[in-house]
Amino acid sequence: MSEESHPHPPSGLLRPRFWGVASFMRLPLWEEGDSPPEIGIFGVPFDSGTTFRPGARFGPRALREASTLMRHYHPVLGFSPYERTEVKDCGDVPVNPLDIAVTLDHIRDFVASLQALGITPLAAGGDHLVSLALLRGLRERAPFALVHFDAHSDTTDQYFGGSRLAHGTPFRRAVEEGLLDPRRIVQIGIRGSLNAPDELAWAEAQGLSLLRIEEALALGAEEVGRRVREVVGEGPVYLSFDIDCLDPAFAPGTGTPEIGGFSTREAQSLLRALRGLDFIGADLVEVAPPYDVGGITALAGASLMWEILCLLAEAVTARRTAAKEGGAE
Amino acid sequence: MSEESHPHPPSGLLRPRFWGVASFMRLPLWEEGDSPPEIGIFGVPFDSGTTFRPGARFGPRALREASTLMRHYHPVLGFSPYERTEVKDCGDVPVNPLDIAVTLDHIRDFVASLQALGITPLAAGGDHLVSLALLRGLRERAPFALVHFDAHSDTTDQYFGGSRLAHGTPFRRAVEEGLLDPRRIVQIGIRGSLNAPDELAWAEAQGLSLLRIEEALALGAEEVGRRVREVVGEGPVYLSFDIDCLDPAFAPGTGTPEIGGFSTREAQSLLRALRGLDFIGADLVEVAPPYDVGGITALAGASLMWEILCLLAEAVTARRTAAKEGGAE
Amino acid sequence: MSEESHPHPPSGLLRPRFWGVASFMRLPLWEEGDSPPEIGIFGVPFDSGTTFRPGARFGPRALREASTLMRHYHPVLGFSPYERTEVKDCGDVPVNPLDIAVTLDHIRDFVASLQALGITPLAAGGDHLVSLALLRGLRERAPFALVHFDAHSDTTDQYFGGSRLAHGTPFRRAVEEGLLDPRRIVQIGIRGSLNAPDELAWAEAQGLSLLRIEEALALGAEEVGRRVREVVGEGPVYLSFDIDCLDPAFAPGTGTPEIGGFSTREAQSLLRALRGLDFIGADLVEVAPPYDVGGITALAGASLMWEILCLLAEAVTARRTAAKEGGAE
Amino acid sequence: MSEESHPHPPSGLLRPRFWGVASFMRLPLWEEGDSPPEIGIFGVPFDSGTTFRPGARFGPRALREASTLMRHYHPVLGFSPYERTEVKDCGDVPVNPLDIAVTLDHIRDFVASLQALGITPLAAGGDHLVSLALLRGLRERAPFALVHFDAHSDTTDQYFGGSRLAHGTPFRRAVEEGLLDPRRIVQIGIRGSLNAPDELAWAEAQGLSLLRIEEALALGAEEVGRRVREVVGEGPVYLSFDIDCLDPAFAPGTGTPEIGGFSTREAQSLLRALRGLDFIGADLVEVAPPYDVGGITALAGASLMWEILCLLAEAVTARRTAAKEGGAE
Amino acid sequence: MSEESHPHPPSGLLRPRFWGVASFMRLPLWEEGDSPPEIGIFGVPFDSGTTFRPGARFGPRALREASTLMRHYHPVLGFSPYERTEVKDCGDVPVNPLDIAVTLDHIRDFVASLQALGITPLAAGGDHLVSLALLRGLRERAPFALVHFDAHSDTTDQYFGGSRLAHGTPFRRAVEEGLLDPRRIVQIGIRGSLNAPDELAWAEAQGLSLLRIEEALALGAEEVGRRVREVVGEGPVYLSFDIDCLDPAFAPGTGTPEIGGFSTREAQSLLRALRGLDFIGADLVEVAPPYDVGGITALAGASLMWEILCLLAEAVTARRTAAKEGGAE
Amino acid sequence: MSEESHPHPPSGLLRPRFWGVASFMRLPLWEEGDSPPEIGIFGVPFDSGTTFRPGARFGPRALREASTLMRHYHPVLGFSPYERTEVKDCGDVPVNPLDIAVTLDHIRDFVASLQALGITPLAAGGDHLVSLALLRGLRERAPFALVHFDAHSDTTDQYFGGSRLAHGTPFRRAVEEGLLDPRRIVQIGIRGSLNAPDELAWAEAQGLSLLRIEEALALGAEEVGRRVREVVGEGPVYLSFDIDCLDPAFAPGTGTPEIGGFSTREAQSLLRALRGLDFIGADLVEVAPPYDVGGITALAGASLMWEILCLLAEAVTARRTAAKEGGAE
Repeated sequence: MSEESHPHPPSGLLRPRFWGVASFMRLPLWEEGDSPPEIGIFGVPFDSGTTFRPGARFGPRALREASTLMRHYHPVLGFSPYERTEVKDCGDVPVNPLDIAVTLDHIRDFVASLQALGITPLAAGGDHLVSLALLRGLRERAPFALVHFDAHSDTTDQYFGGSRLAHGTPFRRAVEEGLLDPRRIVQIGIRGSLNAPDELAWAEAQGLSLLRIEEALALGAEEVGRRVREVVGEGPVYLSFDIDCLDPAFAPGTGTPEIGGFSTREAQSLLRALRGLDFIGADLVEVAPPYDVGGITALAGASLMWEILCLLAEAVTARRTAAKEGGAE
Repeated sequence: MSEESHPHPPSGLLRPRFWGVASFMRLPLWEEGDSPPEIGIFGVPFDSGTTFRPGARFGPRALREASTLMRHYHPVLGFSPYERTEVKDCGDVPVNPLDIAVTLDHIRDFVASLQALGITPLAAGGDHLVSLALLRGLRERAPFALVHFDAHSDTTDQYFGGSRLAHGTPFRRAVEEGLLDPRRIVQIGIRGSLNAPDELAWAEAQGLSLLRIEEALALGAEEVGRRVREVVGEGPVYLSFDIDCLDPAFAPGTGTPEIGGFSTREAQSLLRALRGLDFIGADLVEVAPPYDVGGITALAGASLMWEILCLLAEAVTARRTAAKEGGAE
Repeated sequence: MSEESHPHPPSGLLRPRFWGVASFMRLPLWEEGDSPPEIGIFGVPFDSGTTFRPGARFGPRALREASTLMRHYHPVLGFSPYERTEVKDCGDVPVNPLDIAVTLDHIRDFVASLQALGITPLAAGGDHLVSLALLRGLRERAPFALVHFDAHSDTTDQYFGGSRLAHGTPFRRAVEEGLLDPRRIVQIGIRGSLNAPDELAWAEAQGLSLLRIEEALALGAEEVGRRVREVVGEGPVYLSFDIDCLDPAFAPGTGTPEIGGFSTREAQSLLRALRGLDFIGADLVEVAPPYDVGGITALAGASLMWEILCLLAEAVTARRTAAKEGGAE
Repeated sequence: MSEESHPHPPSGLLRPRFWGVASFMRLPLWEEGDSPPEIGIFGVPFDSGTTFRPGARFGPRALREASTLMRHYHPVLGFSPYERTEVKDCGDVPVNPLDIAVTLDHIRDFVASLQALGITPLAAGGDHLVSLALLRGLRERAPFALVHFDAHSDTTDQYFGGSRLAHGTPFRRAVEEGLLDPRRIVQIGIRGSLNAPDELAWAEAQGLSLLRIEEALALGAEEVGRRVREVVGEGPVYLSFDIDCLDPAFAPGTGTPEIGGFSTREAQSLLRALRGLDFIGADLVEVAPPYDVGGITALAGASLMWEILCLLAEAVTARRTAAKEGGAE
Repeated sequence: MSEESHPHPPSGLLRPRFWGVASFMRLPLWEEGDSPPEIGIFGVPFDSGTTFRPGARFGPRALREASTLMRHYHPVLGFSPYERTEVKDCGDVPVNPLDIAVTLDHIRDFVASLQALGITPLAAGGDHLVSLALLRGLRERAPFALVHFDAHSDTTDQYFGGSRLAHGTPFRRAVEEGLLDPRRIVQIGIRGSLNAPDELAWAEAQGLSLLRIEEALALGAEEVGRRVREVVGEGPVYLSFDIDCLDPAFAPGTGTPEIGGFSTREAQSLLRALRGLDFIGADLVEVAPPYDVGGITALAGASLMWEILCLLAEAVTARRTAAKEGGAE
Repeated sequence: MSEESHPHPPSGLLRPRFWGVASFMRLPLWEEGDSPPEIGIFGVPFDSGTTFRPGARFGPRALREASTLMRHYHPVLGFSPYERTEVKDCGDVPVNPLDIAVTLDHIRDFVASLQALGITPLAAGGDHLVSLALLRGLRERAPFALVHFDAHSDTTDQYFGGSRLAHGTPFRRAVEEGLLDPRRIVQIGIRGSLNAPDELAWAEAQGLSLLRIEEALALGAEEVGRRVREVVGEGPVYLSFDIDCLDPAFAPGTGTPEIGGFSTREAQSLLRALRGLDFIGADLVEVAPPYDVGGITALAGASLMWEILCLLAEAVTARRTAAKEGGAE
């Protein structure tokens, strides 16, 4: 595969960033029938799983617009993802805001069809319920390990007298459905008051690793990275990043803000400490533009998607290399 | 019935309007078990029927806060509703944002229980789908005439491949369910591009009267009032006011804004032209605070609820008087 | 007096409007000791008389900034005020936000000292209570006629159990103190619910002319102008313009918004219908920048101050001419 | 030409309006090499000609996003433009925000290349200077008549000591360059203070028809339409719509707001009164998203672009029909 | 006392947080005549002591709304305040925004009447001047120690030529009146430029302990907690939390912002380091909603009130236990 | 020189900070012909060098307004700049937003004329391109060392196909023109993705010292200060502070935000670590008010200008002292 042929976003030195239809990272749009990229970024404009402030259905558009500020080369990681792998904007998943179950099926099928083409997915939410459907779409290689950044554990059983599909339940469902291996789940940034002292009992009983924010900060990014590796071990890992793990000062535009969160700098450090894991898919969720101020949440979201894209590019490259080597043997 | 005993909001001359827990019009809160008021204002914090911008679930709180600016006496109509009838804030309907069908049942039951106590309902949405459930709750006296202010006809059949319960469908469903008499429906302020030339065919076939905004403005409020009377005739009338009948300059905070709408002054005139109709319930819907600017949409909504409250107070008084006279004979 | 020597703001064709320290209309600053201009624009950054939303203390700065958009020549009236008379920015009145009585004295003294120098005042509020002190400062030539644009009559007696100095009381106090001749007061744009049916009884008993907004609009600007002339007759007239006479869509940034108000176009027409009155002072009040959106209230306020400045320039010129002619006899 | 083959935007009844990459009217993107549409909508993200508030460089993106609310059928005009003609989103013109002259060349060349393919242009600005370059691109068929909606005449000679290319000068330059026939120019909505009494002298001397806003409103839309026809006569007409002809309450997000402007309803009526003119190109300019509030300016701009698109579709159809008939003879 | 009977807020798992009239923490409203709770949260909607930006009069409503996000259980402290003690929303103190002295009396009397019923007060301001009146209301047990979080020392003598009651003076007055023991006062987070080098001379002369922010951060929360204990010693302690001790990035909605402040995470840590002190009352002040962005200041304020509520619940429980034990002897 | 005669801003204890025409730090305005101050603060309202979001042309006005919150005495540095030296607001540099080259000449000449009068300049931008012109104005004493706070190196060669004057190029031009000694340049806070791996190659080849943000934070303020001293050595130093070195949570109102930036507290510490350098001029740039939220960027900018003013006051005093001593010998 000749890397020179990879599509690159137009340079901000040639076309100003406010120029052109806004696609993720200014990448070309991929349509069914085109030859598939290795990584596909797409939107999941769905927020009907929200229990407090909706609005994340507008997340993909806002993230696309903010992502036009991203350039080509990551100076800390020392490479450009576009040199290593082919990335495109695969558009938005079809959704029905009036029907949760149907939309989860749409998302699952969309991801499954990407996977069938060898495309590693990077999804932009939408609320956190979409992660359940994204995992369902990837199910072929399940169960996965999960690295989960969030203020909330999202392992509640049900809401409002029986609703089991909500943005506070995806990872409980995913464990129940065998999509995730609970002992290989690590949740980072958990904080905030609880509905009851035993609200996290299920998660703990299942063997999830919870790194409360105080703990994560006390350890520092490097040590958190080490512990994550311990928990997830070898094997395929899914990365789910809820923007509300950031503090409301850094990410006001989200559905369920909790004070006392990470700064963007801390989040960057934590993500960079995860290099080398075998990420097979990822999402960034809960950017709710109607609550954003000055676009800083969308910018944070797009910038962290850029970090995640670089992690995926390394994983994709590693898998390709391994496959070649495997094939060469 | 001694009118002196009616609860009055605290005067803005004694307690500043920013003082106290915000209830509708600063009225006392009514709780089950208290003696029932004649008119009950309540919130329906539900927006899961929204097809574009959600947020109306926060409408009741914003309308309560803005309504604290309302005073006691209407100088154009020449009376105080609190002199004529007892009004209270009946709280919010229980809702489940994750389940449309269940919530519509909650709303229906809530209204039915108010009606059983002789309370005339004035609801604050919430998206426009809640009107369907409100009408269901009142069904005992159906079919009703409908005076409907809106930019949209809200008589679509279905969305997104089969969803029949959405904020664009309530009045089609209500006609189908026998809650409304289609020949006694008048829709005022309709405008905006259509999905197809025949989008209003069903409404026209059923005999609904559509007053497009150009027509309503050309006629003037008084003549519109006359035509409304012609259409609705005698008998019970429901009033549904979608805030998006106002222009986005006057009501930016709504789910599906359309330019070219009414000013608040025009809306006041139109409502005041409806005196004397036998209103048995009303709602004001689609105030979406996350999209409001400077609170002007909430203020417009609360101020128009004040106009509607005065219409209801006249209707309630007329019914009481008629009942007494009937009883006296 | 050679008119060529009048100070002119820098032209927007030479210095962009965003350039320079923001003074009213980009005029030179006048300081005590300089030769006095004929018209002095100044700020009264005081809002401690507010009963609902404070913030008008920041009005003068916002009005100065927005006024930098004003150019030199009024194409409808057909002249430039700077050709006819000398105008300067006289700074702000000293205020104490913690002490209403002391501040009213400061304002009175400031205006009296301007008047002693022959400077006709154009004040930028501040809340409406400052008008009382402005009139006190001018008292030498009292009683005055008053042309008063407002949503509210501002003739309440007292608030909150005895406070007689508030932004809802200035004109009652001014009549009581003999500063205004009640039969020569006309109030334009009055609307909104009342605290009690007799809230305007005092005003009516005193003989004030109230033009409710419905009436003013039905008459049209020209006819309103005629009626104003009838009411104020000959003799000195004070003009007080509360920005809340505009609709909240046009002026959201104010302390006590009422829907159903004037558009800016209607306000321009009404002001232009007042040419030829003997205005001896004026104010524009209740611009509250913290509640403004997109600066449109400040822009409306500054643009209407420009209209008022032109009215004052005509009156000043007429008085100067009359004085010369009188002197020549 | 088979009209069934025209591309249609996805229906809002199938794909919610918040779904998908935002293109103008949700239309397909056209790229060089594709078969050309009859009408091409494109963005001109350039605001370096601005003399007060920049920001219109972000206009195209905001207009694309807001235009996703537009549906297919215009109920007042009684047709769908997509039934009559093929329309696509042609992307953005290349720009250099640091170089006015170079960018004007880019715009000119872009339009000329569209014209060479038979594509009628509908441009989304950008500031008003871009109209000059758009006209240059169309020059082959010049001189044109011009229907120009604006608060300002935009016929200033120069700014800041010699700059002749600014958003206040395009139509003076265009007349000088023979692109416009000055006696066939009509400007509608002119208002606001002037820098000097003779600021419009050049325009008047050239024979431009100025309809000040007071005049336009007194005449009414129908009569304005009649006068426009008188002025522009037969022959090709360019339509330029500066969003600041709207009042700041309706369009706060613009570079040089002037109070006392049109409502969106008035603007719709005025545009609809222009049916039947031979429009060969159009633009809508000066939407400045950083100053918008609640997105109402972008919504107004996109909705008026929809009106203009319908006018263009009629003109394109008429020319096609005439060409066929001509060809048939 | 049976703890099962304590009122609990409705769970966010049963009633969504946007549901219902907004009371503090969604607690039941207490009215005079009801049996008194042990802790009473109430609002003090008063900001007439403000010297820069007013608006804190709207603080109580915004804090009530944001506090609906608080849940029942504090996972770091390890308990639910509602299990330990009875808490209710006691409404707002009557205020007169036009009269500082009268309002301070109202506040004092309100608190005194709560204290007479054994209710420990947690007040939501309002500007910081209200703390003086709150202390006056508690005076029976004075002098108190004070733990004071703030950017400013608030020990100025007077403003604007003699005003001694302002939001910059409360603690000087409180010391002068014998309400506070100056040697048992600790101020945390002090920063910002001063009016004069000796501005803090009085505070230092009285023996107040000032922990400038640099110092507090260098020490860390645990060590700050230790020093606080040293300063306040045994005996009753009042806690006053000015939201401006947070950085403007975390709390933009306040009257006198100072850069370089605490993050919410640092504030949480500092408060949690104060467990075990004998808090007899507390306030959180200076949340000014008109200056808030995205509601993050109100959320921070409500979340820190939740922390303080837990501290009070521990203190109340300890006093109850001590009293029982004392009574048992 | 008698220091008692220095002009002081009015104290916030006498005149509230919202009072009066807003000048920098509330200082007197200096006009040509007045006796020159030692330090002149002035605005450069120019942003035509911006490549992404313009708006910094409104920076000087916003910074003036926010700077009225600054008081007289710096408690950490332990002195008042107004005691040590005379400071005035020197107004704004004339600009032409339509002509980059001409404006750069205006800026250069303005600074040169200040320097000729012995005035040390402190400029408020404007975009970062203005620094190039400021340095040109000071050229007489060049080459200078540079301490440069920024997210970006601003040493790009050209943009958009040949434009060499942009806000991303000033320091490359300044080195090329001999205004800066590249080996005495230190850049602090650099971060964000790059257009290409070799984007910083020129800077590194020239010998610039780059302290990426991770490095600066790991070292701590004191050690950074030490390294800066090592790099700049003896001799005159220019200080350029781009507000985008702050994180978007602390400074959203800027043209090219990058997440992961400094907090205001960190920036204060870093600046305070630079005491004693021989600063001969400084600027603070890239505050773009249209993108600000709640005014926090302007407040941060003004507060950091206060820190820089104190650094300049020390340098000016040191030079004056040295000159006297030199003269005495």
